[in-house]
Amino acid sequence: MAKAKKVSKRKVNTSKVGIVMGSDSDLAVMQEAAKILAKFQIPYEMTVASAHRSPQRAADFAGSALKKGIKVIIAGAGHAAHLAGVLAAHTRLPVIGVPIDSSCLQGLDALLATVQMPPGIPVATMAIGKSGARNAGILAAQIIATSDPDLGKKLTRFKQEMARQVEKKAMAVEAQ
Amino acid sequence: MAKAKKVSKRKVNTSKVGIVMGSDSDLAVMQEAAKILAKFQIPYEMTVASAHRSPQRAADFAGSALKKGIKVIIAGAGHAAHLAGVLAAHTRLPVIGVPIDSSCLQGLDALLATVQMPPGIPVATMAIGKSGARNAGILAAQIIATSDPDLGKKLTRFKQEMARQVEKKAMAVEAQ
Amino acid sequence: MAKAKKVSKRKVNTSKVGIVMGSDSDLAVMQEAAKILAKFQIPYEMTVASAHRSPQRAADFAGSALKKGIKVIIAGAGHAAHLAGVLAAHTRLPVIGVPIDSSCLQGLDALLATVQMPPGIPVATMAIGKSGARNAGILAAQIIATSDPDLGKKLTRFKQEMARQVEKKAMAVEAQ
Amino acid sequence: MAKAKKVSKRKVNTSKVGIVMGSDSDLAVMQEAAKILAKFQIPYEMTVASAHRSPQRAADFAGSALKKGIKVIIAGAGHAAHLAGVLAAHTRLPVIGVPIDSSCLQGLDALLATVQMPPGIPVATMAIGKSGARNAGILAAQIIATSDPDLGKKLTRFKQEMARQVEKKAMAVEAQ
Amino acid sequence: MAKAKKVSKRKVNTSKVGIVMGSDSDLAVMQEAAKILAKFQIPYEMTVASAHRSPQRAADFAGSALKKGIKVIIAGAGHAAHLAGVLAAHTRLPVIGVPIDSSCLQGLDALLATVQMPPGIPVATMAIGKSGARNAGILAAQIIATSDPDLGKKLTRFKQEMARQVEKKAMAVEAQ
Amino acid sequence: MAKAKKVSKRKVNTSKVGIVMGSDSDLAVMQEAAKILAKFQIPYEMTVASAHRSPQRAADFAGSALKKGIKVIIAGAGHAAHLAGVLAAHTRLPVIGVPIDSSCLQGLDALLATVQMPPGIPVATMAIGKSGARNAGILAAQIIATSDPDLGKKLTRFKQEMARQVEKKAMAVEAQ
Amino acid sequence: MAKAKKVSKRKVNTSKVGIVMGSDSDLAVMQEAAKILAKFQIPYEMTVASAHRSPQRAADFAGSALKKGIKVIIAGAGHAAHLAGVLAAHTRLPVIGVPIDSSCLQGLDALLATVQMPPGIPVATMAIGKSGARNAGILAAQIIATSDPDLGKKLTRFKQEMARQVEKKAMAVEAQ
Amino acid sequence: MAKAKKVSKRKVNTSKVGIVMGSDSDLAVMQEAAKILAKFQIPYEMTVASAHRSPQRAADFAGSALKKGIKVIIAGAGHAAHLAGVLAAHTRLPVIGVPIDSSCLQGLDALLATVQMPPGIPVATMAIGKSGARNAGILAAQIIATSDPDLGKKLTRFKQEMARQVEKKAMAVEAQ
Repeated sequence: MAKAKKVSKRKVNTSKVGIVMGSDSDLAVMQEAAKILAKFQIPYEMTVASAHRSPQRAADFAGSALKKGIKVIIAGAGHAAHLAGVLAAHTRLPVIGVPIDSSCLQGLDALLATVQMPPGIPVATMAIGKSGARNAGILAAQIIATSDPDLGKKLTRFKQEMARQVEKKAMAVEAQ
Repeated sequence: MAKAKKVSKRKVNTSKVGIVMGSDSDLAVMQEAAKILAKFQIPYEMTVASAHRSPQRAADFAGSALKKGIKVIIAGAGHAAHLAGVLAAHTRLPVIGVPIDSSCLQGLDALLATVQMPPGIPVATMAIGKSGARNAGILAAQIIATSDPDLGKKLTRFKQEMARQVEKKAMAVEAQ
Repeated sequence: MAKAKKVSKRKVNTSKVGIVMGSDSDLAVMQEAAKILAKFQIPYEMTVASAHRSPQRAADFAGSALKKGIKVIIAGAGHAAHLAGVLAAHTRLPVIGVPIDSSCLQGLDALLATVQMPPGIPVATMAIGKSGARNAGILAAQIIATSDPDLGKKLTRFKQEMARQVEKKAMAVEAQ
Repeated sequence: MAKAKKVSKRKVNTSKVGIVMGSDSDLAVMQEAAKILAKFQIPYEMTVASAHRSPQRAADFAGSALKKGIKVIIAGAGHAAHLAGVLAAHTRLPVIGVPIDSSCLQGLDALLATVQMPPGIPVATMAIGKSGARNAGILAAQIIATSDPDLGKKLTRFKQEMARQVEKKAMAVEAQ
Repeated sequence: MAKAKKVSKRKVNTSKVGIVMGSDSDLAVMQEAAKILAKFQIPYEMTVASAHRSPQRAADFAGSALKKGIKVIIAGAGHAAHLAGVLAAHTRLPVIGVPIDSSCLQGLDALLATVQMPPGIPVATMAIGKSGARNAGILAAQIIATSDPDLGKKLTRFKQEMARQVEKKAMAVEAQ
Repeated sequence: MAKAKKVSKRKVNTSKVGIVMGSDSDLAVMQEAAKILAKFQIPYEMTVASAHRSPQRAADFAGSALKKGIKVIIAGAGHAAHLAGVLAAHTRLPVIGVPIDSSCLQGLDALLATVQMPPGIPVATMAIGKSGARNAGILAAQIIATSDPDLGKKLTRFKQEMARQVEKKAMAVEAQ
Repeated sequence: MAKAKKVSKRKVNTSKVGIVMGSDSDLAVMQEAAKILAKFQIPYEMTVASAHRSPQRAADFAGSALKKGIKVIIAGAGHAAHLAGVLAAHTRLPVIGVPIDSSCLQGLDALLATVQMPPGIPVATMAIGKSGARNAGILAAQIIATSDPDLGKKLTRFKQEMARQVEKKAMAVEAQ
Repeated sequence: MAKAKKVSKRKVNTSKVGIVMGSDSDLAVMQEAAKILAKFQIPYEMTVASAHRSPQRAADFAGSALKKGIKVIIAGAGHAAHLAGVLAAHTRLPVIGVPIDSSCLQGLDALLATVQMPPGIPVATMAIGKSGARNAGILAAQIIATSDPDLGKKLTRFKQEMARQVEKKAMAVEAQ
């Protein structure tokens, strides 16, 4: 993640994405989102704020994100994962939620607690775990690309590259 | 609920229990808690505060409850039910959570979002729906009774009365 | 939905949001998204395309959306809800998925089929049913507002209005 | 757990919390509750009583707890976890239930068997496993603190300390 | 159920099966068991005893059943259905459990709370609801028939009759 | 279903598909399969055979199907739906299973009991209920069409017609 | 299992319990049932018969069990566990089902396929896995004891011994 | 898999079964299907095509399969497994779906996303994972055997061999 971190640090005042996690034990999962943002050279910042243990910190992060120039918030949490919902309650920015598998229930609790938001406050929910964190990074890029054609082109190439990767793997499997 | 309301109004400054619901559509469920408190003559107040649509209101309610003399908070919400957790995040009072069945998932989402709290911030979770709301009222009474022997005696009689009711029903069934 | 339809028709060439549903039986749910877009005066178009019964139509819609000026796609489907994923496979625009409760499994199948996307192709998943459709409209507005400050202000007022509505309901409940 | 045990032994006649587990194999989980009580210097006692294999012992524990000065009971069990419900049936003290993940079903059976109590007999249900046991200790402290202002202050500091811990972790993550 | 009741009353002192339900609201379900017993002319008694609201009554019923000549106990309950387990804890007679669908979770809670018994105390669990109650009656008959050849013959004829009924229905469907 | 029945009766000796249901109460669901077969003019026969109440009848049906010229068996059942598996155990013909929602668990029990077959004996499982029954008819046609080019062409037109229906519905929705 | 086997072999012609498993990979689980039977000196036989791969063998076992003097059948199987149901279809003896966790779904599929039997054919379902197999042995003993007072006394002592074991474990935990 | 591969390569132009997987990480599972086809000497081809990352490739494979002489398609995928449904949307050949356990949810997401197809487009769904892949191979053989009597005879012998294997295992267990 060296490159990702450099991007993040250099451009910390101009972060376009804020990645928040409920606990530092979620870092390995949420770095998947950071890696994607770094790949697309989207400046981001990453921090910890618990909806339950530090609710004010969570509210403050969300409440000030717009002014700081952040365009999208990504929130990852496990158990009864309220973090994304709490952030969404305090901002009108799009909030992407990543349910994390950190209880006995394999992330089903985090998924339902993230996705089943009542009307009024959406959370753009991703799959549980690393797949979801990675997709959160891509969705953040897609959202920013709605007003950034250069990033849009990068995303188009990224999709083409994914298709090519599948073809390569297909050839390897077919050659067996 | 006439009597409950009278108790509630007369003693509003000395409420011992705060009942909060995420939406006024939860009122029919949460009144089951109120009825029990009224039955035990425990003064309570009842209001609406959404963890998502009015997060500040929810935080303020929880943050000021202790000073107002409230001893226990009961919170009922549906969907990704964050209300009890948000209140618990802002107070050191015991918070009782009632999951409400208001989405397609029959309250399973609300149950997991209420009970699967991460370490540090407990929510005393009840069964989904009216049974749970009723039990929330009883648990609040049991908590207050830990320092109120008279209320304790009422609870003991309440248990005895429940056992008698079962016997009565048993006789009716046996007599068929 | 008179107003929504007028907006939609007048501005059909400049739709910013494409609402797609897997079957016309999903219309009552997906109109909740349309209503929100109409409220925010965001031009949209609404159509039917089945991932399974008309896959080419779905691919074409997604493949041409970007050129037509669409910024966000909202897709609603039930059962093994593949529609949002299929659309997301064919565009780099953000795709919002609304799982619809149209099988015996109360939308759990549609939820998992929408949210559990493999890495590479995110779908911003909402709650099951009308709550989710309504939130899909709000999220689409939030995404467009990342580059439209006026819409951003409307969203801020919308949040404030929601908080006020909660207070009003609170007063009604407290006054009982 | 040295300290916890010392507290427990010295004050065994004045235990304020009774921790009961269905099997000695649950000890590792339930010690999380004991650790918290020890941290708050709340005297407790800990024992084994099975709702199924030793129902009389369970009934006797619950039936005599009030007289012994116990204020709160914490019960942990797995499978079809009836222990908390059985204890609650025999006392008017608040009973906190900790579902334990000891079957194939990852604690979902224990969770539903603990939380879905019928009306009349509440069990204050915590999350499955160690998180839940830890929270059971905190909730017990919160309940006792409703009539013990000094303990209340400790709980307030505990919450502040948790928030500080989050900030520290946030700094570590941000510094990466 | 006229006949069933007559059998039950005449032979109440020689009941071979005890049917217990957690609440009189379970009567409509549990009568399915009674109907089967009546059909096989097996004397039974039927009563109400709640594991939670009248634990002593439940323990007494189970504790005295053997001496009264009862050979099998059938227990039906909903929610966190502990009744069958509690009865089984107090007797060495076979206990058949019928989970009843009386909460939001459609009997899944009652099923898991009944079937997932820890080692040592079995409960012979049936399907949720009326199908299960009916089968509880049949299983009770099968158990008693292990030492009652005449009843065994009736059960064999009952099975043959079921097969004949299927054939009759098959002919009706085929004739369409 | 007049036409379907006529086809069925006239060609009963040359049935290509056998539709079996566990109970005549499943008829309304399974007729969806029959309607599709009638539409494709595939002769079929339809009967009742319970895996549990008439196991010999079920075994006989499956055991003789091949010789009677049947090419595909469709089996619909609810609860712990063993019918498709039992038939598949007695034949090497392809067996299509339709889980039916006839218990409290909304067909989840029937789905898992049908689809989770152990290695060696496949059951081609469809969605729960009428959608699944309809698709069972289509799959049976697809299987027969692997050696019947004319039927294959009908299936191709059927797919084209489905796509056209979607377009028609799309126009209706767009015209709103 | 030396002793169990000796008992089993010596008395093979007078087996009172038949233990059947769907695959020899289930042996480790089902031996828990055998151990209990050996402990109570109940002669048993143990074999493999698959409901799907060898349906005739399964039907024959069940069909001849009564004549061989068997009083209770215990059946263990995983996946879509039809074995117990198939055996129950072919005998009027009590059949005890043990769901085995041998698929990805942790035994939930086996549980529902075993317990959700349609009306007419009961299966006395135990918990998933080894706990359930052990309880199956105990239930078989309880059933046989309905006409064997000596075995009944052994069961009573077994229950008393279990209670003593709990007390011993309680002392160990209390002494910590 | 040497033999399987040889068959596959020699006869690649005349493949009768196409095995498609969503990712090369699914290869170990899907080879179970290939092994069965090789055992029955059914020529097959195996490739990778992602419904999401390479939708055109998936559509092309399905769209051209019929012309290439393929009779059955087997598709394996995990997460929100859309692959089988996407292939089925583009062909009138029978499509067999194998849900793969590659997310936190143990394949339940893949199962529901594969089996709960809306009316019109069936997917013949197998059990999750290797058991399902193996059964997919058998079902493909059964389908082809509907017009290939020699293969049909092999399948009959295969079933007989499975029954014999069970008997062998039974003897081993009985001999313990």
